[in-house]
Amino acid sequence: MSTALTQNSVPTTASWQERVRDKQQRILSDVPPQFVHPELRFSDTDARDVLDLPTFSNDNPARVVHVPEKYLSSDELAITALKAEEIPPAIAAGTWTAVQVLDASTHRAAIAHQLLHCCLSFVYPQSRAQAEKLDADFARTKSLVGPLHGVPLSVKNQCRIKGTETTCGYVTHLGERDAEDCLLVDIPERAGAVPFCKTTSSVGCMWGESINNIIGRASNPHNRVFTCDGSSGGEGALIGFGGSPLGVGSDLGGSIRTPSAYNGLHGLRPSSSRIPYFNVLNSMEGQEIIPSVVGPMARSTKSLQLFVKAVVDSQPWKWDPKCPPIPWREDFAADIRNRPLRVAFLHYDNYVLPQPPIRRALRQLEALLRKEGHDVVPMFDKELDQKRADQFGSDVCTADADEDVQHSRDLSGEPKLPLLPPKGPGALPPQPMTLRESWAFAMDRMNYQAGVLWAWDNTASQTKSGEPIDAYITAVNPSVAHIHGEFGRVRYKGYCATANVLDFSACTLPVGKVDIAANPPDLTLTTDANGNDIPAPQCDRDRWIRENYARNHKEYDGMPLVLQIVAKRWEEEKVLAISEVVDGLVAKADGL
Amino acid sequence: MSTALTQNSVPTTASWQERVRDKQQRILSDVPPQFVHPELRFSDTDARDVLDLPTFSNDNPARVVHVPEKYLSSDELAITALKAEEIPPAIAAGTWTAVQVLDASTHRAAIAHQLLHCCLSFVYPQSRAQAEKLDADFARTKSLVGPLHGVPLSVKNQCRIKGTETTCGYVTHLGERDAEDCLLVDIPERAGAVPFCKTTSSVGCMWGESINNIIGRASNPHNRVFTCDGSSGGEGALIGFGGSPLGVGSDLGGSIRTPSAYNGLHGLRPSSSRIPYFNVLNSMEGQEIIPSVVGPMARSTKSLQLFVKAVVDSQPWKWDPKCPPIPWREDFAADIRNRPLRVAFLHYDNYVLPQPPIRRALRQLEALLRKEGHDVVPMFDKELDQKRADQFGSDVCTADADEDVQHSRDLSGEPKLPLLPPKGPGALPPQPMTLRESWAFAMDRMNYQAGVLWAWDNTASQTKSGEPIDAYITAVNPSVAHIHGEFGRVRYKGYCATANVLDFSACTLPVGKVDIAANPPDLTLTTDANGNDIPAPQCDRDRWIRENYARNHKEYDGMPLVLQIVAKRWEEEKVLAISEVVDGLVAKADGL
Repeated sequence: MSTALTQNSVPTTASWQERVRDKQQRILSDVPPQFVHPELRFSDTDARDVLDLPTFSNDNPARVVHVPEKYLSSDELAITALKAEEIPPAIAAGTWTAVQVLDASTHRAAIAHQLLHCCLSFVYPQSRAQAEKLDADFARTKSLVGPLHGVPLSVKNQCRIKGTETTCGYVTHLGERDAEDCLLVDIPERAGAVPFCKTTSSVGCMWGESINNIIGRASNPHNRVFTCDGSSGGEGALIGFGGSPLGVGSDLGGSIRTPSAYNGLHGLRPSSSRIPYFNVLNSMEGQEIIPSVVGPMARSTKSLQLFVKAVVDSQPWKWDPKCPPIPWREDFAADIRNRPLRVAFLHYDNYVLPQPPIRRALRQLEALLRKEGHDVVPMFDKELDQKRADQFGSDVCTADADEDVQHSRDLSGEPKLPLLPPKGPGALPPQPMTLRESWAFAMDRMNYQAGVLWAWDNTASQTKSGEPIDAYITAVNPSVAHIHGEFGRVRYKGYCATANVLDFSACTLPVGKVDIAANPPDLTLTTDANGNDIPAPQCDRDRWIRENYARNHKEYDGMPLVLQIVAKRWEEEKVLAISEVVDGLVAKADGL
Repeated sequence: MSTALTQNSVPTTASWQERVRDKQQRILSDVPPQFVHPELRFSDTDARDVLDLPTFSNDNPARVVHVPEKYLSSDELAITALKAEEIPPAIAAGTWTAVQVLDASTHRAAIAHQLLHCCLSFVYPQSRAQAEKLDADFARTKSLVGPLHGVPLSVKNQCRIKGTETTCGYVTHLGERDAEDCLLVDIPERAGAVPFCKTTSSVGCMWGESINNIIGRASNPHNRVFTCDGSSGGEGALIGFGGSPLGVGSDLGGSIRTPSAYNGLHGLRPSSSRIPYFNVLNSMEGQEIIPSVVGPMARSTKSLQLFVKAVVDSQPWKWDPKCPPIPWREDFAADIRNRPLRVAFLHYDNYVLPQPPIRRALRQLEALLRKEGHDVVPMFDKELDQKRADQFGSDVCTADADEDVQHSRDLSGEPKLPLLPPKGPGALPPQPMTLRESWAFAMDRMNYQAGVLWAWDNTASQTKSGEPIDAYITAVNPSVAHIHGEFGRVRYKGYCATANVLDFSACTLPVGKVDIAANPPDLTLTTDANGNDIPAPQCDRDRWIRENYARNHKEYDGMPLVLQIVAKRWEEEKVLAISEVVDGLVAKADGL
């Protein structure tokens, strides 16, 4: 089989519209034709859950029959139900081959794309050749090439794969082919992973909905009226749908964690450069005060551990100048597993109140941890000051007054999407920061970080063991999810951006699904459904987030309910071990 | 004894001249009067070596009698001859008390200041109380409080000590008293060190000579016609003179290593934030692309190891948000001691040729290492591209077109010193970089770093063991030293700044003294003293550096000869272990 990918058929000098039309026609062109089902249609208004591959009838849209077998064989369904960590052992046991695993994932990913518009490129000819080579190697040596042997890997379209287009959501990069793999593709590949598709994002990876001029919006597989969020929303939708067992996203203000939350996934925002960013395309490249980071998204904590350990074990600091030489420290994880956790809960950050199901889940998880003998101490919410962190995050995203993003748009002539409200929080400043203003900003941010570190250290006085807390647990976002186009109104990033500003390790923790019967809307803005007082809204975004839950109450039914665990900087082993422990408790309790 | 320090007697609203006059009168006012010898006079033109405390006769300036006993008792001479690592064991053995050690150092430091103008503050009342407490603790417990028990510590006047003035070389900070210690004072103190004085620097720590409007120039104890260099020149002169066993400097483009070289010391430029910078004052604060770092200067490799290990063992990442959680890795050092070193030599960077004694020392050291069975492989001088690194270093120092430094000068009205030539390399740009230009700069720098890392990794193909080199060895500067006022002409920073741009671990290695009989000037610009071809000058600075050695040949006699060892990022244990090994070889060979 040739490994050549379909090339663009219009030149890069064509109009942006022509380039986009060409691209849209090419997205599935490298996928075997039997994996493409023209009757499957994208929607961003259809509220039905597409997770179980409903059979649609265009004649009778109300009729929904979940018959996944119509599209996927029982083998394909079994394979795509595997978590990443289950794949290498299954190949080692001879249950499946790498080619079977790749084909099943590619098929399901192609379906995901048809329903959700979550992909921008498939690299099937290349990935098929890689899978064949893995199978040949295994047949010869009877051993796996590495810890990710045969695991299909999807990557956000910032990651360069030789021969493919890496757009970062910009039309200008259509037709430009990567000269080489980025480290974050090369390293997993050497560990046996099979990069097989590239997923969509917001324009320039700068917006909390995956919308761009190349493919438009991507939808949420749990309910297509909701966005899969952004900027790593393509990964969120694809993995959430089961089209990939493991993906790579990036996170500057929650862009891994929010799509993970909205799509019911485990996602890790590592500390900066624990995972190598080198040669990954981005907007605002060189902005290093609050850097974007790359990290994994998957369907289990173990999948995240598998990926991060494989990458760190490769010693990326040999090639990426930003990576600190911190090896994978299994003792951090062992310590966590062998004693009571020390945690604090941030139920509310004194600025924006999470929606009722999130508040309830946090209360229930806190009770569960206490009941199981873990040490829960008060949260230092004052020093954490998420409102301030939200402002830092917003300021860094608008530091250049959109010049860099506009420059990239100008290169192709693509229009600006009407996303950001011209006024209010997060609105563009009239001028870029000067260099000295950016230095003052960096100092403010460092002093903020130090204040939190010192408050964290002081929690030692509250715990039973006299040691500081391991982590705090909170919402990922105040919203369970939001409907397409709503991000401009609800984009309070405090719960996520705090970890970015602090450069802390943070992961998402799915704890169940929203049951609207158990989670009615608040009665008023100051009284919850049980008649208990709740804090009055502190800002418009807070009010809108509350109103959204009340107004669209029925839509939320069955949406994923996901919390966040935050540990200190460069403590990825620790935060994932905590996730493992809490996962286990939640499973034992049969959900919250 | 009261621990109160002498306060400023003119308000901070006074003219800069009045504030400076007041400060100059106060510098020695906290030192016991018997440690001050009014007959000792500063000079920046006297070529005699003051290391052994010459007795000066103002009536007969030609008469020099080295009678250190005139000023220091035999106990004081014995104590001030101790290296830092020898002090805690001597106190543990009961040979000396912490008070005796402090007093001897303070006395010798006060003499150093009178001869060299190297200090800006003494904190004797406080440090005496600390030393007394250490002695009382030891008398009670019979154990040392920590690895630095009783070691007097001098710090560059960027380091905050509660109650003192931290000027960073600016008049505006005179009279401002620090509210608290910086981490880099607090941590050694908790390990038993006794911070006892603060040393001078260039204005804003931005120039390779220690000159400012507070005290003027500081001189080199080996020969006062030479500068002690900068910006950590006060430390260099003080430790070089024996007035302190251990000091802390900072390094943005060689500011630890060049003063270490010019004053015959061991100095370490650690990778950024291996040693905590938090709450240390600086110019251009918040500039994080190529950050300034702090590190130790001393009279032995072991002193540097003692200090860095003590600081790293305190886990500074608990409080300084920039510090990576990399523990002290003794196994890195053990590995180095137990096998042949793998090194490359950079004799010449294809841009500026080191002066003859440095070239000879590098050749001799290479021959010695080969003879002793170490593995010496070719240097990747092309990828290292020091000319480019020098430009990066220069660009970062002028990024804001001097706005920040000028702002600090304006606060007091102090005049700009006429240092920087208006044209040529390093001259100020007309405008600060824009934010986006600074981002492009950060990307260029990262790509440069990556190119070097990859070249470094490729040295594996050249070594006997198939592993990459441990380090490369080169000049600290092309000049052995330079005369006061010459920095503007000779300031090629390529040999030093490369480690800053790469954020590599680099230390200085004294290998002897210049013997001008063995190191005659080159015959011509293209022929050395032996008639061998040398590369023609590539730029004015190269020519001036060569001419300096020829013109001032006699002055260089007896000046320290110091080389540089450079290991990769965050490999402080390794670079110091290499220094230890090479130190031993040089000592065994009785000098180069």
